[in-house]
Amino acid sequence: MTDFALWSRRSVIYMVVVSALAVAAYRLPGITGFSVPWSVVLVLGTTVSLVAGFKNSQVFTRSSEALQAFAQITASSRMWSNLCRDFNDVPTARQLIYRHLAWLTALRFALRRPMPWESMGRAANVEFRRRYRIQEYASSIADELRPLLAEQADDVLKSPHPAITLLEMQSVQVNTLFKDARIPPQVYVELTKLIRDFHDQQARCDRIKNNPYPRQYAIVSSMFVMIFCTLLPFGVVPVFADMGKLGGALGPIAIWLTIPFSTLLGWAYMSLDQVGESSANPFEGNANDVPISQICRDIEIELRTGLGEVDLPKPLPAVNDIAT
Amino acid sequence: MTDFALWSRRSVIYMVVVSALAVAAYRLPGITGFSVPWSVVLVLGTTVSLVAGFKNSQVFTRSSEALQAFAQITASSRMWSNLCRDFNDVPTARQLIYRHLAWLTALRFALRRPMPWESMGRAANVEFRRRYRIQEYASSIADELRPLLAEQADDVLKSPHPAITLLEMQSVQVNTLFKDARIPPQVYVELTKLIRDFHDQQARCDRIKNNPYPRQYAIVSSMFVMIFCTLLPFGVVPVFADMGKLGGALGPIAIWLTIPFSTLLGWAYMSLDQVGESSANPFEGNANDVPISQICRDIEIELRTGLGEVDLPKPLPAVNDIAT
Amino acid sequence: MTDFALWSRRSVIYMVVVSALAVAAYRLPGITGFSVPWSVVLVLGTTVSLVAGFKNSQVFTRSSEALQAFAQITASSRMWSNLCRDFNDVPTARQLIYRHLAWLTALRFALRRPMPWESMGRAANVEFRRRYRIQEYASSIADELRPLLAEQADDVLKSPHPAITLLEMQSVQVNTLFKDARIPPQVYVELTKLIRDFHDQQARCDRIKNNPYPRQYAIVSSMFVMIFCTLLPFGVVPVFADMGKLGGALGPIAIWLTIPFSTLLGWAYMSLDQVGESSANPFEGNANDVPISQICRDIEIELRTGLGEVDLPKPLPAVNDIAT
Amino acid sequence: MTDFALWSRRSVIYMVVVSALAVAAYRLPGITGFSVPWSVVLVLGTTVSLVAGFKNSQVFTRSSEALQAFAQITASSRMWSNLCRDFNDVPTARQLIYRHLAWLTALRFALRRPMPWESMGRAANVEFRRRYRIQEYASSIADELRPLLAEQADDVLKSPHPAITLLEMQSVQVNTLFKDARIPPQVYVELTKLIRDFHDQQARCDRIKNNPYPRQYAIVSSMFVMIFCTLLPFGVVPVFADMGKLGGALGPIAIWLTIPFSTLLGWAYMSLDQVGESSANPFEGNANDVPISQICRDIEIELRTGLGEVDLPKPLPAVNDIAT
Amino acid sequence: MTDFALWSRRSVIYMVVVSALAVAAYRLPGITGFSVPWSVVLVLGTTVSLVAGFKNSQVFTRSSEALQAFAQITASSRMWSNLCRDFNDVPTARQLIYRHLAWLTALRFALRRPMPWESMGRAANVEFRRRYRIQEYASSIADELRPLLAEQADDVLKSPHPAITLLEMQSVQVNTLFKDARIPPQVYVELTKLIRDFHDQQARCDRIKNNPYPRQYAIVSSMFVMIFCTLLPFGVVPVFADMGKLGGALGPIAIWLTIPFSTLLGWAYMSLDQVGESSANPFEGNANDVPISQICRDIEIELRTGLGEVDLPKPLPAVNDIAT
Repeated sequence: MTDFALWSRRSVIYMVVVSALAVAAYRLPGITGFSVPWSVVLVLGTTVSLVAGFKNSQVFTRSSEALQAFAQITASSRMWSNLCRDFNDVPTARQLIYRHLAWLTALRFALRRPMPWESMGRAANVEFRRRYRIQEYASSIADELRPLLAEQADDVLKSPHPAITLLEMQSVQVNTLFKDARIPPQVYVELTKLIRDFHDQQARCDRIKNNPYPRQYAIVSSMFVMIFCTLLPFGVVPVFADMGKLGGALGPIAIWLTIPFSTLLGWAYMSLDQVGESSANPFEGNANDVPISQICRDIEIELRTGLGEVDLPKPLPAVNDIAT
Repeated sequence: MTDFALWSRRSVIYMVVVSALAVAAYRLPGITGFSVPWSVVLVLGTTVSLVAGFKNSQVFTRSSEALQAFAQITASSRMWSNLCRDFNDVPTARQLIYRHLAWLTALRFALRRPMPWESMGRAANVEFRRRYRIQEYASSIADELRPLLAEQADDVLKSPHPAITLLEMQSVQVNTLFKDARIPPQVYVELTKLIRDFHDQQARCDRIKNNPYPRQYAIVSSMFVMIFCTLLPFGVVPVFADMGKLGGALGPIAIWLTIPFSTLLGWAYMSLDQVGESSANPFEGNANDVPISQICRDIEIELRTGLGEVDLPKPLPAVNDIAT
Repeated sequence: MTDFALWSRRSVIYMVVVSALAVAAYRLPGITGFSVPWSVVLVLGTTVSLVAGFKNSQVFTRSSEALQAFAQITASSRMWSNLCRDFNDVPTARQLIYRHLAWLTALRFALRRPMPWESMGRAANVEFRRRYRIQEYASSIADELRPLLAEQADDVLKSPHPAITLLEMQSVQVNTLFKDARIPPQVYVELTKLIRDFHDQQARCDRIKNNPYPRQYAIVSSMFVMIFCTLLPFGVVPVFADMGKLGGALGPIAIWLTIPFSTLLGWAYMSLDQVGESSANPFEGNANDVPISQICRDIEIELRTGLGEVDLPKPLPAVNDIAT
Repeated sequence: MTDFALWSRRSVIYMVVVSALAVAAYRLPGITGFSVPWSVVLVLGTTVSLVAGFKNSQVFTRSSEALQAFAQITASSRMWSNLCRDFNDVPTARQLIYRHLAWLTALRFALRRPMPWESMGRAANVEFRRRYRIQEYASSIADELRPLLAEQADDVLKSPHPAITLLEMQSVQVNTLFKDARIPPQVYVELTKLIRDFHDQQARCDRIKNNPYPRQYAIVSSMFVMIFCTLLPFGVVPVFADMGKLGGALGPIAIWLTIPFSTLLGWAYMSLDQVGESSANPFEGNANDVPISQICRDIEIELRTGLGEVDLPKPLPAVNDIAT
Repeated sequence: MTDFALWSRRSVIYMVVVSALAVAAYRLPGITGFSVPWSVVLVLGTTVSLVAGFKNSQVFTRSSEALQAFAQITASSRMWSNLCRDFNDVPTARQLIYRHLAWLTALRFALRRPMPWESMGRAANVEFRRRYRIQEYASSIADELRPLLAEQADDVLKSPHPAITLLEMQSVQVNTLFKDARIPPQVYVELTKLIRDFHDQQARCDRIKNNPYPRQYAIVSSMFVMIFCTLLPFGVVPVFADMGKLGGALGPIAIWLTIPFSTLLGWAYMSLDQVGESSANPFEGNANDVPISQICRDIEIELRTGLGEVDLPKPLPAVNDIAT
């Protein structure tokens, strides 16, 4: 809740400034009484709620889908590990499983690369970013791939899409094992199904990463919120000005209540809009991201345990309640 | 309905207090007549309904999906049991089926473990919890796994994720049966499909368990409800104050009608918000949980009957109409 | 439309009584002029529409899903019948197909058993029930299974879940046919896929049957409708009272227009809420049920025709336009 | 747009009549000033929009699903044609493909048969129907099946469900080809998958055809629209009556503006309701139908070209922009 | 944002004209004071938001589905390429992969062909089109297919649906490879699955291309927006006229504020409607299209790299931030 307040500080400042302008305009000699009728604000309020509601709902679907893709990757990784170990000699199994971990690593780095439309550059987020840590920004793909791939690492790193190259290498090796009759046909079919699934999930993540929530939808929503929040104090000011006419202690200060009151409402509506923004790009390195570093680390620990290793990496803890 | 009223007692208290404050403020010398214009409350009312409506709808989808996962597990468990019994000798079948029950047990315990964001700690829920009983809190995973797994139990309990370890053991045994040509290839393919399905459903449940409904969405909804319910009595008070001016028996008491009236409305809107909260985490040990203990117990009875056992556990009845 | 009116008679009576109370209260000496401001009713109206809209939409999804499950069962039953007949001798095919019909019968009876939360006991429905006929209430599962299963009927009827027992018997026989090499492996795989599908569809129907639409969601919706409809006449009464002041022939009777007018609106909103209720449980023996008796009868006719039988049961006609 | 206006002429007439009544009532001596408060109309307006919005959205889903089924049938028909031609001698391939075209024909005729709840009988639609042509009404299933099925046509036409009988015949032939080892097992599996898919898509289309959009949902929506549109002019009349008091040229005629104004609004809202109706039954022979005649004709042309035929039927063009 | 403003210039002009008319009508001798009550505008505002909200949401689903189809095509293309290369000699692999690229090309050209209902012809779009470049309009299918298909190009180009013909050629070749035992049965099954998937995705894209978002839905939405925006200034004008009565510097000009104010609101609501239009046809050559040229180019680069080629085409960059 504190995080939330901090994060939306900019909205508050905007609303205070506009509210002060509204009070000033209302009292300015010459245009005294300038205001916007509340009924207009009312229409806009309904529209803003609806437009933002639909937007948030669509954006929520995007980020749920990203989460689903990684849940599916987790399940398939376990199957992959089981089948590789049970039907291959130890070095082959190790190679297939390590290359799978390399694929996860390459995928993570690809998904966390910055895109022009992602919001991490915005001032509100930069500040907030200090509170947690994205592993992919603190490390490099080369450093992480080398221990997993040994001599093959350089070839992979040279390719424009390391994740795709790695899946292709898996295909080649599995096909060879089948051609050499080193795995039974049924197992070959299962492994091919899993590779197919990895391709599908990667295409799904890439689709979400490469195609932002349609810009025009996002703009229309923000536009309505901005119009609404800007007109809001001009609609509120005559109400409190009238209340001032009741006299009493409240009299002289009533009109100033416009400022806290408008700010509270404006901040709430702006938050409604920003809530959607914050999860529109579920791989941007945001606090609301799908925690792909964590998920991949968990898979790594499981798969290495399966290979009998004991010198395992540690799970990535949530920092300040933010899982990454 | 009584349960519902009890559960939402806290909302009522909050509304009575705020309403009393609104009446007091309205009559307080110096700020006599202080109120919030109803038109503002109107805008907020529409927004609250929409935001809460979208939230409840998304949360409903979460809990439906959890239910679907367990329906799928039920269907696949029956197939598993049939295939294991028809293509294996009795001890092997028994081992595969008992291990499956162990997996269900481990899954249940994992899903019912407390998470920081789950609402069971909240005062309203603690009180309500006395009315039913979650089997996983009354028993321990060790006690339940030992009779199912015999000497393998300790290894499983040592593992950080017993459910995953158990599925892996199933894989290993099924793969071995196939390599030893003790099951036909078609049956091997079917069993592998079922293990794949168990992995998928587990990943689905884990996804729901490990990733709460996005915090920022929940906060925005609650925030709007709180703002709305807090302003509501200040909007209602002038209406009843005016009614008092009609005189008659109603005159002196009219303004006090603000309190029951605002409380009724505020309670209804707060309930609307809490309804979503109550099913956001379908595995938290809540009265609205997916009844996983009951579902798993039913599967256990079926599978043991299939093995010809007669000393069966009893189905878990709903306690106070609450299935767990 | 007449049915609809009849069915919602109770709403009308409630609204007439509340409206009369509202008129009485408005004119009662001492509290003359008592009313509820329309603006409050306005906020509630929006909320009621939204909450009921979301509820109806979710409930619609439930009943669509039930319908989908039975469409899928129809398609799979046809495949089952074709494969059984083409790859088996006549007695075996007949046995597999008759047992399939027995499964459909057992499923129907299980889905039509009463559940505590189903609404068939409600007065409005009991009366309406006289207009159509649910086959499962007029017959018994024992009478229907005996001709289909011959000597196996008693074993099946003894089991707590006849439908599951029957699917298990299908599995056992298909597995035996495969082990005895009486069906080719490809056909075994297809038949296993179909059994898997029957298990899945049954689990889907059971999920809908055993897990009502979340009680708390339904209560919140009904609560808002009740609050809205109860306040509605109190909001309407001052409007018509004012109209009475215009004098003329309308003068003395204007206030009484509150009653028909409020009743019309209240009835419409209550119908909106009840529409959802009426299809929340698609297997409860309601007029809006998924017509499972009819669907299963159609499958029976088709499958028996396929076996070359000529003494076929008749299709179940819709009674008073209600398919069951 | 002209079509649309024509089609909704009845709404316009209704609105003109009700508006005239509202003006008359307002001016009628004795009940002068009779009107309905706009605030009531406002509540209803929100409800109408929501209820109609949800209805249209659900109905849209129905008709999208019908379209999906036919897209799937198109894709599967192409696969069917390829596999039949590549693994069979020419006469067998021809027979399997012609029977497939016969199935499409039988399916079309079954889907276009009239159902009691379909709206084609309504006056507005009958008139509109003259503007396009449904092939299934101009021809007969017997005439279309005979050239495709030769001597088998009579048997098929005798069956109560020709489409199902045809799919069954495909199954029998494919199973025989497999039993006679005339197609490899892998191809048998693919063909069985395709037959399974045709069964599934047919069950999906039948589900949409046989189960209308729930009557009670449709009635509630229309009921709200009717109440709203009937009250609307009574709410509008005092507004224009007041405007008349401003005098000027507008004075005497202002009240008559009620009629065009109410009619415009009422027509718009009635159209909103009718838009849903018009696509609720996507196979009823409506201008908004899924164009199944056209889709099936396109498949026929493709499949016959594949058989090397040159005397092909012509594609069905859209008539007056209406594809059928 | 600038793009957005430019694109919606027409809305602004319309609103300025209508607003000026509203001011003129209000002051015109004879009909002085002519206006539309704001409460009517309010009802329409809610309806417009809802109707446009539902429309935008459905249209968004359409364009998401188009994107999903191409993501799926990407994943399947990679699998296709891997399997073709690993189980065939180089010339066969090359032929299968080049023909796949030809299919993508033919599909692109088919999806980008103009349809009567697509909005590219509209004035607002024509102007905007100068800012980016659709590859399919700058090139011809013949030119692009020839290098990929060599001597087969002419046959393909003669066919009415080159994409379907190409998929059929793939089927024929894969079936022949299987009949000649040049690929193992398991690989044949996988390749057939991929061809099936290409057929399915093509049918999905064709469904979206050939069946516009239902015209009547789109018309109703635009109709409400037009009615709302036309009435809006007539509702706003009395508000500012009243403000003018406050005197001061604002006095004489207050009424003219109607124009900028109405224009701002009307433009926002028209944009809300147009936002949906702009993505209703995701293959029309619009700036909001699914970037199929780019996606297909990326696949081409990957697949050619896989064949060991080094003379690769360049990725298609986004022009003015518009990916095509």
